[in-house]
Amino acid sequence: MFIHETKVRVRYGETDQMGVVYYGNYALYYEIGRVEALRSLGMTYREMEESGVQMPVLEMRCRYLFPALYDEQLTIRTIIREMPTARITFDFEIVNERAQLINRGVVSLAFMNNSTKRPTRCPSQLAGLLMPFFY
Amino acid sequence: MFIHETKVRVRYGETDQMGVVYYGNYALYYEIGRVEALRSLGMTYREMEESGVQMPVLEMRCRYLFPALYDEQLTIRTIIREMPTARITFDFEIVNERAQLINRGVVSLAFMNNSTKRPTRCPSQLAGLLMPFFY
Amino acid sequence: MFIHETKVRVRYGETDQMGVVYYGNYALYYEIGRVEALRSLGMTYREMEESGVQMPVLEMRCRYLFPALYDEQLTIRTIIREMPTARITFDFEIVNERAQLINRGVVSLAFMNNSTKRPTRCPSQLAGLLMPFFY
Amino acid sequence: MFIHETKVRVRYGETDQMGVVYYGNYALYYEIGRVEALRSLGMTYREMEESGVQMPVLEMRCRYLFPALYDEQLTIRTIIREMPTARITFDFEIVNERAQLINRGVVSLAFMNNSTKRPTRCPSQLAGLLMPFFY
Repeated sequence: MFIHETKVRVRYGETDQMGVVYYGNYALYYEIGRVEALRSLGMTYREMEESGVQMPVLEMRCRYLFPALYDEQLTIRTIIREMPTARITFDFEIVNERAQLINRGVVSLAFMNNSTKRPTRCPSQLAGLLMPFFY
Repeated sequence: MFIHETKVRVRYGETDQMGVVYYGNYALYYEIGRVEALRSLGMTYREMEESGVQMPVLEMRCRYLFPALYDEQLTIRTIIREMPTARITFDFEIVNERAQLINRGVVSLAFMNNSTKRPTRCPSQLAGLLMPFFY
Repeated sequence: MFIHETKVRVRYGETDQMGVVYYGNYALYYEIGRVEALRSLGMTYREMEESGVQMPVLEMRCRYLFPALYDEQLTIRTIIREMPTARITFDFEIVNERAQLINRGVVSLAFMNNSTKRPTRCPSQLAGLLMPFFY
Repeated sequence: MFIHETKVRVRYGETDQMGVVYYGNYALYYEIGRVEALRSLGMTYREMEESGVQMPVLEMRCRYLFPALYDEQLTIRTIIREMPTARITFDFEIVNERAQLINRGVVSLAFMNNSTKRPTRCPSQLAGLLMPFFY
């Protein structure tokens, strides 16, 4: 299992008139979580795209437990529970400054060859970086 | 069962550098779907908020089947399968101009009393408007 | 002079916790204004991009006169005051349901050759469509 | 004169299909710039709102000099050139990792009493914190 944590501060533009983060904006936080998780492993999503592999999202699930408020610093915990194959699944737990778990998410992405737009396997560089966490 | 359809055109700002609608922006489409579904029933979400009831989102699930492209006119089909109780669940099917089902979503929302911030039951006006579709 | 009007309804996700449309979201409305203006002339921005010309924004100015509220139907008036050359300038006036002018904007865009990423002149198709409004 | 710098990393969801940051998203960066500038002075915008003063935007100007790319770390330089009165004006310079000035912006905001929705003067706490930079 691979776990990574990163922090993000809620922007004003991410709130809505209910006074809390708009429900659609958690997708941005999950994106930050997985991008920073990859960076901590030693590769960037930008490099992956430049090497010809994109990662379209297949599925997302979110559970909204408590609202996130403007200017709060949130901790995004990103978890990879299984070695990726033709897809990779990230679990997310978002925790506020009072250590309250406010949101849980799951996002599954495919690996796609940029030029053929066809599914491909997990790039070997990423597989190699993740291997030590699973075996 | 209650079914409603509305149309939305993909904005440039909703795409990302993969050349398709960013996965987080479907939440905006689901929001339009349910807001227009309520309007077609004869009440607006704005009125509901003004009458003291807000509808925070509890849960969302999205399945991304095909990408949505810039400037496409999408049809959002909004389905209510069960009479709301303390929560209401909307199913969404998004279809592109070539009649291809590109996205499926489910969003559950609570009814919340604005001032107490406590859950409340489905407002009787909405229940009355939905009743004919279920009995 | 060319003038076009289109309507847009304020989405919940476009508001912020001040209870009004977030100041950054007017750029989305201006985009809708100019895209629909082009469509009414007989060409789409999508076609222009597909023909190899992109229109990066060079400059934007916005004046916020009154707030826009959730669920209001806004009228976006898009005005082209001068024949485009290597750039095109759009003026925008946004009016709410009570006929109140709430926002004024100006956006200038370049014409750019997609492959060379170099400036280019206004495509002749667009120039031809605009000509009757200026001479 | 007061100058402050903060950094922000471009998110995938902030790009559009031109492969660069969408022109409307710079408003988010300016917001981060001014919020972090205030924080560095010793007060947060959240506190200001909670104390009953909101800051609606009156005017924005942006000049787009070079595109910002996905995953780039941008430096937002926030400048206050004059002591605020009933309004405050921020200048912004955004610089990329190659020290290239890519964007310039100006945003003017009013101080507004939350309850009366009427303009008010710059809160004395903020005026006190800024004073040393101007006299």
